[in-house]
Amino acid sequence: MSDPIYDRVALIGLGLIASSMALAMRRDGLAGEIVGTARSAETRDTARALGLCDRVVDTAEAAVRGADLVVLCTPVGAMGELAARIAPLLDPGATLSDVGSVKRAVVDALQPHLPAGVHLIPAHPLAGTEQSGPQAGFAELFRNRWCLMTPAPDIDPTALARYRRLWDAMGARTDLMDPDHHDLVLAVTSHAPHLIAYTMVGVADDLRRVTDTEVINYSAAGFRDFTRIAASDPTMWRDVFLANRDATLDILGRFTEELFALQRAIRTGDGEMLHDYFTRTRAIRRGIIEAGQDTAAPDFGRVPTVP
Amino acid sequence: MSDPIYDRVALIGLGLIASSMALAMRRDGLAGEIVGTARSAETRDTARALGLCDRVVDTAEAAVRGADLVVLCTPVGAMGELAARIAPLLDPGATLSDVGSVKRAVVDALQPHLPAGVHLIPAHPLAGTEQSGPQAGFAELFRNRWCLMTPAPDIDPTALARYRRLWDAMGARTDLMDPDHHDLVLAVTSHAPHLIAYTMVGVADDLRRVTDTEVINYSAAGFRDFTRIAASDPTMWRDVFLANRDATLDILGRFTEELFALQRAIRTGDGEMLHDYFTRTRAIRRGIIEAGQDTAAPDFGRVPTVP
Repeated sequence: MSDPIYDRVALIGLGLIASSMALAMRRDGLAGEIVGTARSAETRDTARALGLCDRVVDTAEAAVRGADLVVLCTPVGAMGELAARIAPLLDPGATLSDVGSVKRAVVDALQPHLPAGVHLIPAHPLAGTEQSGPQAGFAELFRNRWCLMTPAPDIDPTALARYRRLWDAMGARTDLMDPDHHDLVLAVTSHAPHLIAYTMVGVADDLRRVTDTEVINYSAAGFRDFTRIAASDPTMWRDVFLANRDATLDILGRFTEELFALQRAIRTGDGEMLHDYFTRTRAIRRGIIEAGQDTAAPDFGRVPTVP
Repeated sequence: MSDPIYDRVALIGLGLIASSMALAMRRDGLAGEIVGTARSAETRDTARALGLCDRVVDTAEAAVRGADLVVLCTPVGAMGELAARIAPLLDPGATLSDVGSVKRAVVDALQPHLPAGVHLIPAHPLAGTEQSGPQAGFAELFRNRWCLMTPAPDIDPTALARYRRLWDAMGARTDLMDPDHHDLVLAVTSHAPHLIAYTMVGVADDLRRVTDTEVINYSAAGFRDFTRIAASDPTMWRDVFLANRDATLDILGRFTEELFALQRAIRTGDGEMLHDYFTRTRAIRRGIIEAGQDTAAPDFGRVPTVP
């Protein structure tokens, strides 16, 4: 048990990320007090029943009073209106952060409401599962995962170091990035892949010639992985695509170009082009394993434990 | 240890599927003798060193002599030429099978070479990992997975029942299907998703504005899953797309249509359309979990064990 890094942390929105933060902070005593709130009474009741926070209060206004760290954990689309309500209540010296998957839109939504002396440090933990809600959280979620932060260049270095220390203590590795660049990188690594997975699952769902039962029973590796991605929270992802529109559309445009080239190779029987392409994509997988972001165990280590 | 189901099984090609079959058959004594061969001397040496088979021989012709079950485990594109060489050597009463991911092209390639009295039972075990080669096999690979068989309607029922018993004993569930229908179902559940994953990884690899290191370090769930799929064997997948061209192109055409509709919703800010779509795709995931083809554990049960 180390000394608390913050005296009072307010978590606004109590989904997978906030509940995991609460559990990780409590395990190691990183916060003197954790106050949580959520828009829906049902979520608040669940959080109370689970004992996620020291206090669960009914409004964001009540949650942020006296907090030296406030983290917005709602869908990105809700953050602007929320910031307008709570920003005037923040104490000088407090840090305002968020965990949204898009950073430019969040910076633009929060910055105008920021009182003097409050430090804005937007953050994005690259961690999650396809499950959502307060009951989905677990303290180990951030272990060995990156948390990207996109503060302005003139951020107070002491406030920044303190916030990075919190994420380090929760097991994450932190890095700084420009918000626009963050949004482009994430469009490639997360946003476009999610939209593609949603699309493929939608196509399967639509097909009348292939009955649902067959698609479900015979879902080999490829499709099964897509359905997992496509099971993610609809509201969160709607907001991600609307808030990171330009970068997502840019990457999807490039994706479509490439897909057409591969379709053409299939149509014309150009086996050499296909083989070269598939050989090239293998290398990037090796890079990910070497970077420690995944396991080399076959099938994510799932297979030997299948019942 | 039960009685052997076949006296001598010949495995032609010693990759992930054949080596897993050998290990599963040996574990439970399902074959009196297992004879294996592979085109490359290196693969044969590895198989010998691993002790996968009772005998590893240098040619397919030598392997099939006296076998009552011959299973082609090569890439689909190699099967026609192989069948022409070995079919004349098969004993009456023997069963010829394969484990290819495409069935119409395999039936068309094998059928013309079939001697009288030999039973052709094409099969496709829906199992695999992103790894390949004889060292990648494990006896549990087929447990709780489907093995689809596409024999002609006039197949000898005793020969079919015997072959199904082998797959049952290796842990699989078997089902019968028309070869064309098989290819359509698999285009949806496996072939199109694989091509899409290859494409997305290729796009990421191409982008000069996003450095490789960033794509690799910050590969959140979506992209990471795609890289795993896109790490699959290039030769096998080249052959799958060439052999299942029409169904794959058909599904990709529908995929592109849907993707354009979603892109348009992002461009015009139609959040309701996106939310409805993402809500619908969640349901099919639940179906897969209920059908026992995957685990409900978050992130494939990976997360708690991340080092």
